[in-house]
Amino acid sequence: MTKITALPLTAEAFAPFGDVLTTAGEPDKIINAGFCGRYHDRANMDFGPEGRAGISLFNAVPREMPYTCDLIERHPEGSQAFIPMHENEWLIIVAEGQDDIPGPIHAFIVPPHTAVNLHRGTWHGVLTPLHAPGLFAVVDRIGTTVNLEEFGLDAPVTVDRD
Amino acid sequence: MTKITALPLTAEAFAPFGDVLTTAGEPDKIINAGFCGRYHDRANMDFGPEGRAGISLFNAVPREMPYTCDLIERHPEGSQAFIPMHENEWLIIVAEGQDDIPGPIHAFIVPPHTAVNLHRGTWHGVLTPLHAPGLFAVVDRIGTTVNLEEFGLDAPVTVDRD
Repeated sequence: MTKITALPLTAEAFAPFGDVLTTAGEPDKIINAGFCGRYHDRANMDFGPEGRAGISLFNAVPREMPYTCDLIERHPEGSQAFIPMHENEWLIIVAEGQDDIPGPIHAFIVPPHTAVNLHRGTWHGVLTPLHAPGLFAVVDRIGTTVNLEEFGLDAPVTVDRD
Repeated sequence: MTKITALPLTAEAFAPFGDVLTTAGEPDKIINAGFCGRYHDRANMDFGPEGRAGISLFNAVPREMPYTCDLIERHPEGSQAFIPMHENEWLIIVAEGQDDIPGPIHAFIVPPHTAVNLHRGTWHGVLTPLHAPGLFAVVDRIGTTVNLEEFGLDAPVTVDRD
């Protein structure tokens, strides 16, 4: 089985797939009479002309590595942001390309205190927390058209740490 | 000084001010080949005809109770959702009314694993985490017009537990 090494997440490495939202560096603005830093508008969201943003909560079963990935999916109609409602690292799997078949697969360990926004149409694995609770807020497209394509991998891949 | 007791947050008590987002009860949908529950589209977001949704991160200084509240604010142009990126309880302060002057003030302890969406125009206190890190993802209005009104309380109030 093909083995993929989950790499530490960086904004640069993840740029082809989406945005990394953190409080690294100085805030864009200090608000609340000096008590709060605002890191402003960090996700490139795109819900198309017919869609709108919605906030849903996802409660996923925690996984362990090595993790067998046999399903890749994408949302052609909108971006999808995953905001951890916990302080644990988690795993995100993405694939290159915009074709009907996902391209080469990559995996990243998302460090604590970090959210990720997948750009519209990015092929990705299902939500894979590594610890309980597997609780995330998800900001994605609310609309009336089908917004899910799933692609089962005939040859699953194993994702593990270095 | 007027003392206000911070009450446990319930959806019913909070309904005049906003939405409470939790995974209580059954999910609206099971996704990811059975591994994830989706609690779908739980926030009533309203960004007006000229605004759009954005995701920002807020990093606020943790406070202690008794807490002195001397500033109430509102965002006339849009709703504002606070998603804790941690598993601690936090404090939210809101005020009744839609007039230029905030009405009676209420305080709630938000339990762990719970997000809150303030309806457009709701008077509220500044973000008040009770533990470090005071890290939240905030989904609010991105636009070009002024979207903040602040109201200093000539008579501050003290918020404490029962």
